[in-house]
Amino acid sequence: MAELTDLTDLTVIADSPAAAVPAAPDFSGWTCPAPLRDHPRIVTGHGGGGALSAELVEHVFAPAFGGPLLASLADSAVVTLGGARLAFSTDSFVVRPLFFPGGGIGDLAVNGTVNDLAMSGAKAAYLSVGFILEEGVETSVVARVAQALGDAARAAGVEIATGDTKVVEAGHGDGIYLNTAGIGLVPAGVDLRPQRAAPGDVVIVSGDMGVHGVAVMSVREGLEFDVEIRSDCAALGGLVEAMLAVTPDLHVLRDPTRGGLGAALNEIAAAARVGVEIAERDVPVPPQVANACAILGLDPLYVANEGKLVAFVPREHADAVLAAMRAHPLGAGAAVIGECVTAHPGMVVARTGLGGTRVLDMPIGEQLPRIC
Amino acid sequence: MAELTDLTDLTVIADSPAAAVPAAPDFSGWTCPAPLRDHPRIVTGHGGGGALSAELVEHVFAPAFGGPLLASLADSAVVTLGGARLAFSTDSFVVRPLFFPGGGIGDLAVNGTVNDLAMSGAKAAYLSVGFILEEGVETSVVARVAQALGDAARAAGVEIATGDTKVVEAGHGDGIYLNTAGIGLVPAGVDLRPQRAAPGDVVIVSGDMGVHGVAVMSVREGLEFDVEIRSDCAALGGLVEAMLAVTPDLHVLRDPTRGGLGAALNEIAAAARVGVEIAERDVPVPPQVANACAILGLDPLYVANEGKLVAFVPREHADAVLAAMRAHPLGAGAAVIGECVTAHPGMVVARTGLGGTRVLDMPIGEQLPRIC
Repeated sequence: MAELTDLTDLTVIADSPAAAVPAAPDFSGWTCPAPLRDHPRIVTGHGGGGALSAELVEHVFAPAFGGPLLASLADSAVVTLGGARLAFSTDSFVVRPLFFPGGGIGDLAVNGTVNDLAMSGAKAAYLSVGFILEEGVETSVVARVAQALGDAARAAGVEIATGDTKVVEAGHGDGIYLNTAGIGLVPAGVDLRPQRAAPGDVVIVSGDMGVHGVAVMSVREGLEFDVEIRSDCAALGGLVEAMLAVTPDLHVLRDPTRGGLGAALNEIAAAARVGVEIAERDVPVPPQVANACAILGLDPLYVANEGKLVAFVPREHADAVLAAMRAHPLGAGAAVIGECVTAHPGMVVARTGLGGTRVLDMPIGEQLPRIC
Repeated sequence: MAELTDLTDLTVIADSPAAAVPAAPDFSGWTCPAPLRDHPRIVTGHGGGGALSAELVEHVFAPAFGGPLLASLADSAVVTLGGARLAFSTDSFVVRPLFFPGGGIGDLAVNGTVNDLAMSGAKAAYLSVGFILEEGVETSVVARVAQALGDAARAAGVEIATGDTKVVEAGHGDGIYLNTAGIGLVPAGVDLRPQRAAPGDVVIVSGDMGVHGVAVMSVREGLEFDVEIRSDCAALGGLVEAMLAVTPDLHVLRDPTRGGLGAALNEIAAAARVGVEIAERDVPVPPQVANACAILGLDPLYVANEGKLVAFVPREHADAVLAAMRAHPLGAGAAVIGECVTAHPGMVVARTGLGGTRVLDMPIGEQLPRIC
C-alpha cells in the first residue's frame, strides 16, 4: 500500500455534501421520444402495467437494451443456455402495506416470479431474492417477511439460491422492497407466447378475478367486510403442469397482475394482432369484490390478481383443459369467458350484462398503485 | 361478472387510510436470535457487507429460506438445471449519487452482477433488470440510466432478457433503485468457492484497491482532485476467462465490493478455516486514493471496488496466472499481496509498512453507505 503522501492534490470544494453532488450528466444529446413528451417526469402510472408502462418499455428500455427478448412482452423470457431452454423472469415488489389479508410482500415476491415462469410453462427451480431495507424497520418484521419467503418457496417447490441485502437511510425507502428473479426449465414442445393467440382460441380464466387487488386496497382504504376478502396469492406451477398434461400445445398463459384481466387481454390482442371477445357476465367476480370495487371506484376487470391465470386454448382442447383446471384446487372456479376472433384485431370487446358491447381499453396508468 | 349486489356487507371503518393500515401481524411466536438482540431495528450496517450483514444472513435469512446454497457465502450460487451447471446471482443497487466519475448506477448494476457470475467462473449470458423508480424523477435520467445499462451489457457480452418496473410515490424512494440478476454457464472442471482456499495458495489482486469507493465518496463529500479519481467499474468476465485459460484449477475468486479487500479476505478465511497473511505495502493503492482515505477517515483496505478481483491460486500456477492477468487490460496492475497459511485459521493478518503486524478484522458495518 502506498505511504500517505502530501495532501495538496485534493481540495475540499464544498462544506455541504448535498451542495457538492453534481447534477446528472448533460442530457442534451438525448431526444425525448414523442410519446413520452407529456411525461418529462415519472408518474405512478409508469409502474402500473398499462399503456404508460408499455411506453416506457417501448421507447426507453427496449431501444437502450437492444435485445430481441425484451420486446416480446411475455411475463418471462425463454433463453437457451447449455442446451437447456430456460424461462428467466424478475419482479420487484413495493406493495403497501407489507401484510394484508391472505398474504404479504414475502409470499407475493415468491409467487409473483414463480407464476411469471409458469406462464412460460416452466416449473420454477431457483429464485434469487434482493432486499432493499429502510434503516429503522423492525428486525422482527424483516424476519417475518423472510419466513414468508421461505415458506412460500417450499410450498412452490423452488429453492432460494442466492440473495442480496442493501439498506437505505430512513426516509429514502419504505420499509421493505423486494426483488425476486427466477429460472426454470421449459418442457419440450411447450411454446407459450402472447403472439401465439389465434382466432378460434377459447379464453379461460382459472377463477375469481380482482381478489388480490381488492384485499390490499381495502386494508389500505380502511374497509372492513362481513366476509373478509383475502388475497388469492398462490403459486400456479402445479395448475399449469396439470393443464400442460392435457396438451403441450396451449397458446398463451398470462397471470393478470397489475392492470388486471383488462390489461392482460389487451397485451395479448396487440401482440398477436387478433381480436378478443368476452362476455362480462361470464367473468367470475365475487359479490364482495364487485361491491368493494363500487365503493372504491374501480373496475374489477382492471384489478390485480396474483393467483389466477388466463389461458388461450385451441378450441379442440378447451373442454379437456377446462376439466383439468377444475380438478385442481387452484382452478376449481375456472370458467370460459370468451374467444379469440379475426374481427377488430388488437381490440378487446366485452358484451355487457345489458346486451350491449363496450371496448375494454388498455388502462393508461394505474388504478391501484403499490399493489405488488 | 356478478351484478352489483347490496352494499351492506362492507363497512368503512376509518376516514383516514393511514389509521386503518393494520400493524404487522403478531410476532410473539418469533424469538429474536441472540446475536441480533442489539439490533431490534435495521441499521445501515446491515447492508454493509460486513459482520452485521453476515449476522442477518446467518440468523434470519438462512434459517427462513432453508436451502443449502445460500449458506455457501459465494458471490453467486452454482445450480444444475437441465444438465447444465449455471451460476445465478443477484444484486440490488442503491448508490448515491446516480452518476459519479467513471460510471453510474446503470453500468454498476450490469458489472456488479456480471462480476459476481465471473467469480464462479461463469461468463454472464443473460441479465434481468428491475427498476424501482420514484415518482417525479426526470424521464431523461431514467433514459440515461437505461442507456448505460444497455451499453454496459453490450460491452460485457451479456443480453438483458427480461425486466420489471415499479414506481413508488415521491418521498418513498430515492430516484432510482435497480436490481439485476444474471445467469451464465460454469465451464467444466471449474469449481471456485471460498471454501477451496488452501494453505500455500498465493493471494493475487488484479490492480489498485479502493478506487470505486473513493470516486463515489469524493463526489458525495465534495472533494475535488487535481487528478480526478474515476471509478474502476468494469466487467471482469474477460479477465477471468484469461486466468482460467492458464488452469481451471483456481481455488477462489472474489470481487471485493462492499467491505473491500478486508471483508473479502475475512470471508474466505472464515469459510475455508485457513489463515491469510498479506503485506500491506504490496497492496496497490494509488496515492490519490490513500490521500482521500486519510481525509475521509477511511481505511483503503475496506473501501469498495467494482472492477477488481482477488484470487487464491495454487502456488504452482501463480506465476503463470499473474502473467496472464498482467497481459489483460483489466489486470495490468495485478500484484501478489500475500498467501494462505495454516496458522491462525479464520484470521487475516497484515504486515504493516513499519514491520509490525495487525489483525485485519471483519468490518462490523459500513464505512461507506450507499456505495453500490
